[in-house]
Amino acid sequence: MSIFNNKKSSPELGFGNKNYNKNVRFINQDGRINVKRTGLGRLGNLDIYHWFITISLPKLILVIILGYTVMNFLFAGTYYLIGCENFGGLEMQTEMTKFMSLFFFSAQTLTTVGYGHVYPTGIAASSVSAIESLTGLLGFALATGILYGRFSRPKADLLYSKNALMAPYMGITGLMFRITNKMQYELIECEASVTISYNDPETKKREFDQLKLEISKINFLTLSWTIVHPIDDESPIKGWTLKDMEDRDMEMIILMKAINDTFSQTVYSRYSYKADEMIEKAKFKPLKQEATRNGRIVISVGDIHEYDAVQEV
Amino acid sequence: MSIFNNKKSSPELGFGNKNYNKNVRFINQDGRINVKRTGLGRLGNLDIYHWFITISLPKLILVIILGYTVMNFLFAGTYYLIGCENFGGLEMQTEMTKFMSLFFFSAQTLTTVGYGHVYPTGIAASSVSAIESLTGLLGFALATGILYGRFSRPKADLLYSKNALMAPYMGITGLMFRITNKMQYELIECEASVTISYNDPETKKREFDQLKLEISKINFLTLSWTIVHPIDDESPIKGWTLKDMEDRDMEMIILMKAINDTFSQTVYSRYSYKADEMIEKAKFKPLKQEATRNGRIVISVGDIHEYDAVQEV
Amino acid sequence: MSIFNNKKSSPELGFGNKNYNKNVRFINQDGRINVKRTGLGRLGNLDIYHWFITISLPKLILVIILGYTVMNFLFAGTYYLIGCENFGGLEMQTEMTKFMSLFFFSAQTLTTVGYGHVYPTGIAASSVSAIESLTGLLGFALATGILYGRFSRPKADLLYSKNALMAPYMGITGLMFRITNKMQYELIECEASVTISYNDPETKKREFDQLKLEISKINFLTLSWTIVHPIDDESPIKGWTLKDMEDRDMEMIILMKAINDTFSQTVYSRYSYKADEMIEKAKFKPLKQEATRNGRIVISVGDIHEYDAVQEV
Amino acid sequence: MSIFNNKKSSPELGFGNKNYNKNVRFINQDGRINVKRTGLGRLGNLDIYHWFITISLPKLILVIILGYTVMNFLFAGTYYLIGCENFGGLEMQTEMTKFMSLFFFSAQTLTTVGYGHVYPTGIAASSVSAIESLTGLLGFALATGILYGRFSRPKADLLYSKNALMAPYMGITGLMFRITNKMQYELIECEASVTISYNDPETKKREFDQLKLEISKINFLTLSWTIVHPIDDESPIKGWTLKDMEDRDMEMIILMKAINDTFSQTVYSRYSYKADEMIEKAKFKPLKQEATRNGRIVISVGDIHEYDAVQEV
Repeated sequence: MSIFNNKKSSPELGFGNKNYNKNVRFINQDGRINVKRTGLGRLGNLDIYHWFITISLPKLILVIILGYTVMNFLFAGTYYLIGCENFGGLEMQTEMTKFMSLFFFSAQTLTTVGYGHVYPTGIAASSVSAIESLTGLLGFALATGILYGRFSRPKADLLYSKNALMAPYMGITGLMFRITNKMQYELIECEASVTISYNDPETKKREFDQLKLEISKINFLTLSWTIVHPIDDESPIKGWTLKDMEDRDMEMIILMKAINDTFSQTVYSRYSYKADEMIEKAKFKPLKQEATRNGRIVISVGDIHEYDAVQEV
Repeated sequence: MSIFNNKKSSPELGFGNKNYNKNVRFINQDGRINVKRTGLGRLGNLDIYHWFITISLPKLILVIILGYTVMNFLFAGTYYLIGCENFGGLEMQTEMTKFMSLFFFSAQTLTTVGYGHVYPTGIAASSVSAIESLTGLLGFALATGILYGRFSRPKADLLYSKNALMAPYMGITGLMFRITNKMQYELIECEASVTISYNDPETKKREFDQLKLEISKINFLTLSWTIVHPIDDESPIKGWTLKDMEDRDMEMIILMKAINDTFSQTVYSRYSYKADEMIEKAKFKPLKQEATRNGRIVISVGDIHEYDAVQEV
Repeated sequence: MSIFNNKKSSPELGFGNKNYNKNVRFINQDGRINVKRTGLGRLGNLDIYHWFITISLPKLILVIILGYTVMNFLFAGTYYLIGCENFGGLEMQTEMTKFMSLFFFSAQTLTTVGYGHVYPTGIAASSVSAIESLTGLLGFALATGILYGRFSRPKADLLYSKNALMAPYMGITGLMFRITNKMQYELIECEASVTISYNDPETKKREFDQLKLEISKINFLTLSWTIVHPIDDESPIKGWTLKDMEDRDMEMIILMKAINDTFSQTVYSRYSYKADEMIEKAKFKPLKQEATRNGRIVISVGDIHEYDAVQEV
Repeated sequence: MSIFNNKKSSPELGFGNKNYNKNVRFINQDGRINVKRTGLGRLGNLDIYHWFITISLPKLILVIILGYTVMNFLFAGTYYLIGCENFGGLEMQTEMTKFMSLFFFSAQTLTTVGYGHVYPTGIAASSVSAIESLTGLLGFALATGILYGRFSRPKADLLYSKNALMAPYMGITGLMFRITNKMQYELIECEASVTISYNDPETKKREFDQLKLEISKINFLTLSWTIVHPIDDESPIKGWTLKDMEDRDMEMIILMKAINDTFSQTVYSRYSYKADEMIEKAKFKPLKQEATRNGRIVISVGDIHEYDAVQEV
């Protein structure tokens, strides 16, 4: 007899069952998983390409400018050690002026602009500048790769409603939130999966349960999509109040998967709601959609946050 | 008891149930979804990379030339403010000539051509030109990424027959249209899905129904493919005339999915027919296919539009 | 009642049912589908990027050199029309020498090498050279994209045995062929699909039938894989002799799908055997596989073609 | 009657059934499949792009420097043959100095830095340098493609526990190992497949059997994942001791598949344990996971190797 059947089917999210205090969330609001991996030295857990692709644009520009300046200082220093007499076109004034001239000669070599009013004459100077222009080209090849990698990186610019609501739904209550696509490109074949994580007061362990969804897949995310978990008799949160959710430090973990239509790329998006981001007795306002005179349907994506209070649930 | 079974299975296209007037279509003839998203400011809903990838080639060339000119003006202005005495090789005539010389010096720096008959001498001028040549390289790295992104973007150049026909099909009537691959590369594992959207006269809402297809997948799209919905007793359009379709403002939404064989890319294509693009009592002419003397099978893709009238249906 | 069940299940290859003469094959030996699409003008059916990616390397080099030369002639001509007095550093001898100097100045501008011993002085000459260096950079960006596209294009370098054999197989006869991976990278999750196409002597139409395979998927294609269709009672070619296959102009169409492990790319490969490439009463020689002293398993891929005659089938 | 049912279902790994001596393993510790393909000449089995992508970084740098030097020697030699009188700016001293000057002129042309203190004058010299600068640009385009290809290559930096353990598991024994993600990026939708390969003492052939796993798929690989094969009555290794495994030269082959979340790339990882890397009567230490003061969960990836002895199994 196999023991496989004895295993209770649970959503295998991979977060483990340890209980943390309430300021810990598994998924940050920006969709990143809240785990830091260490143990391989200062930079061992860092993939340099991933780092370049995922840092912010201002940081990247800073790194490029810094790298450019440092490289020029290093090469200018080398040229200075080789000696100014190995360069033609240098105006020999102070040591400082000489170094600056070599610094700019280095910049002109690294970028291959090579005006040539300063130029290397001896073998040492010529060799180093031959190495520098090759370095420049390779560095630039790297920059091309990084910029393209950042550009073409699959991304889903989903907007999630600020709150998840407990709203009336087909005679019972539904736990629901709303998403939309912020951008003009299309997301197709969208799939949603919603899991809750909470502290079980009995076992004192972190438990995970998947929430059944009314619809878990749509063909196009053109307007907005209200993702609804109907709290029916089978629901693991049947009968829970908002207070219960807070007491159990409940986190609602959302995984979205879609295809970016422009590039046929599969894209992923994550989000999470903790109990203090959920609202009882409220329902989403219908999203305004107008057709312009020339037949174009228009929505305003910020409207997905809006909700109305409801009297009775 | 779960409420999931109570839900009528409907194709979840994601378009909502609002009724628009008749000049609104969900899918434009070029395959784009007819929805504009706003609400994030002037450029907030625009992904700059997607924009660069999807604008027309003339527009892209215009943007590049404009950007190049503006950059040169900005840098030339900066050089002019720094002062012409900081540049060697400048012929000092009128202010206008000076500015033009600096403008072209800027162009030679930005493209890293760097002839060197004009060259920077002071620290300020040298620094700005060092920044300009770096800017040039990075801008060029961007251009490389954009051009490659445009080139390598997955695309399916499908040609759809101008009309969808109501033709005799195996004793009953079929609603059919025809597609072919315009290009010499191969599309494989082609799948079709056809949905209709129409105004329900009773509910006054927009309804969606998926149409069953005779064959919904083929291995190769080598010749042409006539996609047929047999209007049998289970069909949601059983008994509808062309007039009925017009009255209900019916739109036939086609989603195609295939694999571009050269790049193993999944490609998507969309199309839609409204009632005025459908024709009753007509059937497609067989596509001419000839073998050349050296054994090559030849078709002419434009032939897929052609049809003949039929007397009886 | 639905008519879907009445449809005989046939493999939908998409080739149509027209009969051609015997020198026509659907799949060429190089895996290309033997169909030419026309009807959109001289170049209308050609995707320029696909063309650049799929032409042979010598052709590509020729196109680049030709394009480079033509561009230089065009720009040199423009410079010549503008007049040599607008260029500094030109040695004014014969008209021919002037043109050649401008031609090489153009080459130095297009590649942004810009030595500067010849340089533009007037506004017209400077403007055209500013345009030329930008053109050079963009052309080079295109070349980068094309080279990377060629490089990174998914490919499966499968080697197919020259012949398909009718060999004894588990008491009956099997129709089999053998494949191996020519290259050092790994192909994983390999899938095979085999279809026959033949002229039906009764209907006079081209028929298609899928052949059941003993094993249609393997995890790794490390050594060789003999793909076997056991000719059992359910086989569509039960009882056919080689002569029958020839009379029916049978073509055995093979579709392979695998994942290139280095790049996680799905790759496709096609091949076909016609009756004159099939051999009766023969079986493949076992592929020699040796372990070297340092524990490396070695095979020689060319061995997959080898077979032995067998007496009885 | 079809013969398909007679076939015993076995995992089709594609390694064949030949028995090797004990120092041969199918999967090396670095995840590479231990097969070398030959038979197409010295370089015939090598895809040059795959080679560039997969060699180590120091090797790549060496190849680039070597290629750069060789190219410059070839072009310098050509210039020398054309004659130094065809170059302006050359200081004519010894033959050696001349050649060195031409060598550096070549480097300045190949990298398009083009200072211009040396420049070609005659048609032959100008032509060759026009070819060299084009060659430089194309070579650089290649380098860009190779660097980007290396960068963007899908990779899963999985860390496998050094040992596989036979540990108590739910009342019986489990064969288990542990993996974690070394890097800061996320791996999602992780799947595992475990197969054993061993010499069957009866048939003297290499046999393969798939091991059932307690859980074979998890959503996130955030912490660590202990992959367990419960040795129940259905297990092919039921009752085997470590000694039995050694006698049969057992190799446990692990295939992992996951999605790199940053790039939506499917990534593969392989590993294998031979009997001498397995340990009886031991169990993994729980992985330490701490929450930092600002709510970040931290693990140290190296801890996955650690285990404790257990008394009874």
